[in-house]
Amino acid sequence: MLTLAPPAPVVSWGDPEHRSVRLLDQRALPSEECYVTVHMLDALVDAIHTLTVRGAPAIGVAAAMGLAAVASHEQGLTHERLAQLAESLANARPTAVNLRWAVNRLLARAAAEPVTELVRALVDEAQQIFDEDVAMCRAIGEAGAELLRAGARVLTHCNAGALATAGIGTALAPVYVAHARGLPITVFADETRPLWQGARLTAWELQRAGIPVTVLPDSAAATLLARGDIDAVFVGADRIAANGDVANKVGTFPLALAAAAHGVPFHVCAPWSTVDAATLHGDEIEIEERGRDELARAGDRLVVPDGVPTFNPAFDVTPRRLVTHYVTDRGLVTPPFFD
Amino acid sequence: MLTLAPPAPVVSWGDPEHRSVRLLDQRALPSEECYVTVHMLDALVDAIHTLTVRGAPAIGVAAAMGLAAVASHEQGLTHERLAQLAESLANARPTAVNLRWAVNRLLARAAAEPVTELVRALVDEAQQIFDEDVAMCRAIGEAGAELLRAGARVLTHCNAGALATAGIGTALAPVYVAHARGLPITVFADETRPLWQGARLTAWELQRAGIPVTVLPDSAAATLLARGDIDAVFVGADRIAANGDVANKVGTFPLALAAAAHGVPFHVCAPWSTVDAATLHGDEIEIEERGRDELARAGDRLVVPDGVPTFNPAFDVTPRRLVTHYVTDRGLVTPPFFD
Repeated sequence: MLTLAPPAPVVSWGDPEHRSVRLLDQRALPSEECYVTVHMLDALVDAIHTLTVRGAPAIGVAAAMGLAAVASHEQGLTHERLAQLAESLANARPTAVNLRWAVNRLLARAAAEPVTELVRALVDEAQQIFDEDVAMCRAIGEAGAELLRAGARVLTHCNAGALATAGIGTALAPVYVAHARGLPITVFADETRPLWQGARLTAWELQRAGIPVTVLPDSAAATLLARGDIDAVFVGADRIAANGDVANKVGTFPLALAAAAHGVPFHVCAPWSTVDAATLHGDEIEIEERGRDELARAGDRLVVPDGVPTFNPAFDVTPRRLVTHYVTDRGLVTPPFFD
Repeated sequence: MLTLAPPAPVVSWGDPEHRSVRLLDQRALPSEECYVTVHMLDALVDAIHTLTVRGAPAIGVAAAMGLAAVASHEQGLTHERLAQLAESLANARPTAVNLRWAVNRLLARAAAEPVTELVRALVDEAQQIFDEDVAMCRAIGEAGAELLRAGARVLTHCNAGALATAGIGTALAPVYVAHARGLPITVFADETRPLWQGARLTAWELQRAGIPVTVLPDSAAATLLARGDIDAVFVGADRIAANGDVANKVGTFPLALAAAAHGVPFHVCAPWSTVDAATLHGDEIEIEERGRDELARAGDRLVVPDGVPTFNPAFDVTPRRLVTHYVTDRGLVTPPFFD
């Protein structure tokens, strides 16, 4: 089996005794590659809250490893104290489902352990979460790589890459697997307004991995599709409804419309856990609206006049009919998922 | 007839003797509203070259009035000297068709005049060009306003507004006319990457005119369309082929795809002179690719990693089938235009 290390360690133990966790500071990319090492709760909460680490899987892994590291510094740790720490951590980003999920998994594991074994059990469980995340990415990559031929030109939106996970990403995992198998692949990355995750993060990690990548404005993707310059679109997902509708970074839906208009396959890559049986259709998904500042300023530059309101939804919903394949760690799956 | 002054004087005479021209410096918007007054050739060339004034109609008007003003300062002006000045001016932006057109029109007018009457004739011709531009905008506005009802929610892309003309714009002209008639209209403006003409310019001029405007990322327009929050899309055009295909700011084409997918009318507003009989189809239109810096930096912030290439087309082509109405100063017209 091919070795497939991610292009940079997004989350790792900060020391051999697992008493700290080291995070790649994604806010500084692509200008600087710097890491923060965390062993206190406040610093861990801050790192998650301020998006030092971002991407649902990566947040879950960082929270798990971070909670285990923080717990190891507690004098006379009890189950009650652990529950307090966990609650503070989970509130760092209340809407991040993976954060709550990871923290709850550590608490469930801890519940069965005597206090003397708590830290060892937490470290062990956190490591399992890390390993499962790596395996999840790998499985998505293996399934998705079957959809790529040598020379394929792939278009992607936002960052559903290694930087969003502990492994090789979700939407980019097929690209990494195909590349490791020796297939030349070229990637076109939407810059992804307003936070530039495509320009800043996707371009950075692919360049590091030696995979050719070109950045374009989100609005130029349709031109590439119309010219016949794209063989497949690969995107991630924040939530997938039972009927197959996909919530993902805003801009995914118009990209799917443009791909369909030109007969280009549009693939959604995500862990199976992203499929939400409780959400029957995409129109049940509430879309977070984010603040004005993300649009009003670009670096030190004012771009929206003071007093003019903005519409800044974080996600959009792509209907099932526009998706060619759903690529998961269970392989290719087809909606409706729970019939 | 309603008075319809543009929200700001984009181009005007700088003094009562027509010996200078005053330009709104659009590079400083929306942070500052400042004007430059020009009476020397170098300063005029610089203002056009550096996009102090932009938008095809506005460039033509500024060049005409500017050339007349510059000529008035020449000692012993001859037809030969005027031709030299005109040539230097036309080269300020070689691809700007309106610039060359305006300059040639002044030269043609001058050809029939004795040297003693040159300056008077140039000022007169420049004023005519200005007046015709104002009338052209007004005619587009009157025709397009018939497509708007009270309460209409209009989506637009880039800036084809008053700031691009001497009058009330092209794509925004119907909005200004409807507003002047007392119809409440709400505008949603795509920010328009990479140069933010929508956020910086469209939002600024509409706010000044007292018309409600909201700025959104280009990629969020499809969400508004899907929600049923948009009644019509109005855009400008840089060139219209004989068959009706439209070259306009990149992002127009995916917006047209999204509008069509939701049954929302998509209107192209432009002077009749934009229709190019020599271009049979959109695929004959060469698309200018612009530099990397526009994407790589946002204000003082690096967003694309060094060494990563970019794809930055200035325009895209929207096929005729996606356009509902062509709104011109000759009224609504229907392709093919020269059968």
